[in-house]
Amino acid sequence: MAEAQIVGWAHSRFGKSEAASTLELMAEVVPPALAHAGLGAADVDAIFVGVFNNGFSAQDFQASLVAMGTPDLAHTPATRLENACATGSAAIHAALDFIGAGRGRVALVVGAEKMTAVPTAETGDILLGASYRTEEAGVEGGFAGLFGRLAAHYFQRHGDRSDELAAIAAKNHRNGAANPYAHMQRDVGYAFCRDVSERNPLVAPPLRRTDCSLVSDGAAALVLADAEIAADLPRAVAFRGRRQANDILALSRRDPIVFEGARRAWSQALGDAGLTLDDLDLVETHDCFTIAELIEYEAMGLAAPGEGHRVVREGWTERGGRLPVNLSGGLKSKGHPIGATGVSMHVMAAMQLCDEAGAMQLPGASLAGVFNMGGAAVANYVSILERMR
Amino acid sequence: MAEAQIVGWAHSRFGKSEAASTLELMAEVVPPALAHAGLGAADVDAIFVGVFNNGFSAQDFQASLVAMGTPDLAHTPATRLENACATGSAAIHAALDFIGAGRGRVALVVGAEKMTAVPTAETGDILLGASYRTEEAGVEGGFAGLFGRLAAHYFQRHGDRSDELAAIAAKNHRNGAANPYAHMQRDVGYAFCRDVSERNPLVAPPLRRTDCSLVSDGAAALVLADAEIAADLPRAVAFRGRRQANDILALSRRDPIVFEGARRAWSQALGDAGLTLDDLDLVETHDCFTIAELIEYEAMGLAAPGEGHRVVREGWTERGGRLPVNLSGGLKSKGHPIGATGVSMHVMAAMQLCDEAGAMQLPGASLAGVFNMGGAAVANYVSILERMR
Repeated sequence: MAEAQIVGWAHSRFGKSEAASTLELMAEVVPPALAHAGLGAADVDAIFVGVFNNGFSAQDFQASLVAMGTPDLAHTPATRLENACATGSAAIHAALDFIGAGRGRVALVVGAEKMTAVPTAETGDILLGASYRTEEAGVEGGFAGLFGRLAAHYFQRHGDRSDELAAIAAKNHRNGAANPYAHMQRDVGYAFCRDVSERNPLVAPPLRRTDCSLVSDGAAALVLADAEIAADLPRAVAFRGRRQANDILALSRRDPIVFEGARRAWSQALGDAGLTLDDLDLVETHDCFTIAELIEYEAMGLAAPGEGHRVVREGWTERGGRLPVNLSGGLKSKGHPIGATGVSMHVMAAMQLCDEAGAMQLPGASLAGVFNMGGAAVANYVSILERMR
Repeated sequence: MAEAQIVGWAHSRFGKSEAASTLELMAEVVPPALAHAGLGAADVDAIFVGVFNNGFSAQDFQASLVAMGTPDLAHTPATRLENACATGSAAIHAALDFIGAGRGRVALVVGAEKMTAVPTAETGDILLGASYRTEEAGVEGGFAGLFGRLAAHYFQRHGDRSDELAAIAAKNHRNGAANPYAHMQRDVGYAFCRDVSERNPLVAPPLRRTDCSLVSDGAAALVLADAEIAADLPRAVAFRGRRQANDILALSRRDPIVFEGARRAWSQALGDAGLTLDDLDLVETHDCFTIAELIEYEAMGLAAPGEGHRVVREGWTERGGRLPVNLSGGLKSKGHPIGATGVSMHVMAAMQLCDEAGAMQLPGASLAGVFNMGGAAVANYVSILERMR
């Protein structure tokens, strides 16, 4: 059966939200997403919810919270997915499978996270729940510490790439300045990102504050429908390919600076789509830390292993470059409300493909890639999206 | 596309386990389940994991733990599902959708929970994460308190059914004495269940200790394959119907002693299967508390609302009765390791349908119903299983 298509979406402003919990955050995006699709609650056959939680809220059973905010959905089957920072993509894949299996024709995907209700130190520990705690939770600085180690390891093998990481941060901040949904909408400049300073300290050496994404609240929703229903709706974006590939959780059991699972997911998804990277107009990739975006350039095939810095130096991933990456500003500017992130990445790509990206718009975009990962490249998801009209 | 079929399984002994975490619990069932199916790790196209967690362990990202215990699965896509006490069924449904959508041909489903590593009081609070905490978490006795309220409400409307609840407990303990995987394998007798005593105190009036399921560690696994692969394997059990129906989380917003979502799921699944309840040989139902099993008799259509006691008095759900319910001993005897429960219920039913249920075996069983619910009948799953040969 043909894959379902994206027919509508909504996106909250990411940042420190006044919404008390995921219940309110989800209620902010569900009715607008349905309205955007031109559908009503009665059209929805199932709901797929992405929330990481793991201690952000004592209220779990998050799938049941959608109907608490949108009571017309009270009897609609709702299911929660979790796959660390790829939780949103996990929910999208389950929704696509639901429609693909013929169990329903319209599915609602909601990703959300309320991160700022707990103290910062607690946030760090909650996020380490997505590392292999037995070996990795002792690292200073939480997940930033883990990616700091990856960066140090990478620099040792391939040379110091601090300047290129700063250029990635600067690019994503520059792009994010045009994104009305982003947590931080400010072009901070390359020099600020490059120089260690009081306002840009080393958080987890060699990573500076500007090399790290933000702790944010937020929600995003997608409406998916089968091709026949999508044909009658105002907009449609197809999944020309989509793949998930995993890698072993413990970093000690693999080469931690080769994102092998990401490489597999990219190669398989492009293969399914019958495309190469050169066919894509843009990519939204998972820049939880700048070093992740650099290694992802290599995993997606823009550069050979260890050569990611060339992509930066040549400006290939800048707006106007060979393959613009993170025109939305990425996690770096948008913020990274864990459960919402994967959904948000698909929303941002779909906006581009439907000419609804406003100041972020890349004219004429028709094919986009999305890469979302859980943990340090453990659960890896690639979607190849295509505008249908 | 035709639904995938159950082709193998494994089940740990439920109870207080020496396994330190879900990682070890899952590792106990994954290789035996694959061996039981006659398949190897390389045959598995995707893994679906059911763990509730929500504080039982600081290690989250549970989908990534399967490969930590069974490294041959390192690159296999793995995804976690959560839907409170129906978490196991959520994982099964996602796996069926995955195969139904043609994304793969073999899926591994693993449900697990390690509950006894945290203090008892903390366990109660963790489980309340599956209630609507804003209104319901203040209840004394945790989830038992919530179902105690339901029982009191039910008695008020329909008469005191304490004796019938005791008969349900006694039946399930009697059945569970024959289940080598059960936490408690002892026929404690009707009188013990009926009489409030030092060893059987009121836990959450009117519920006695014997009206409540146990806190247990455990894991269960299912291997699912498409019909073509299943045809070449030693055993196969088909899903003739399966449905999920939800109800609003907050008990204050509905009639709490009518399990409307359960009624819908049963009616839809039987309708899809083209069967009536009378066609089934046995049912495994969600007896987290005896009052739940009583109300479920009404939701599945064995009795009219308020008439569930007649089912008990007539002995319909006893072994040898019109529709034996919980021949495995149910959650009552087996224990209720949250993420494992839904998977376990399907394993127990599949054993019966393949004549592999040992001392629990109901001779000639060919059709079974499974009902698994999350929260107080919030996320409701019904499967109609059929032996294929």
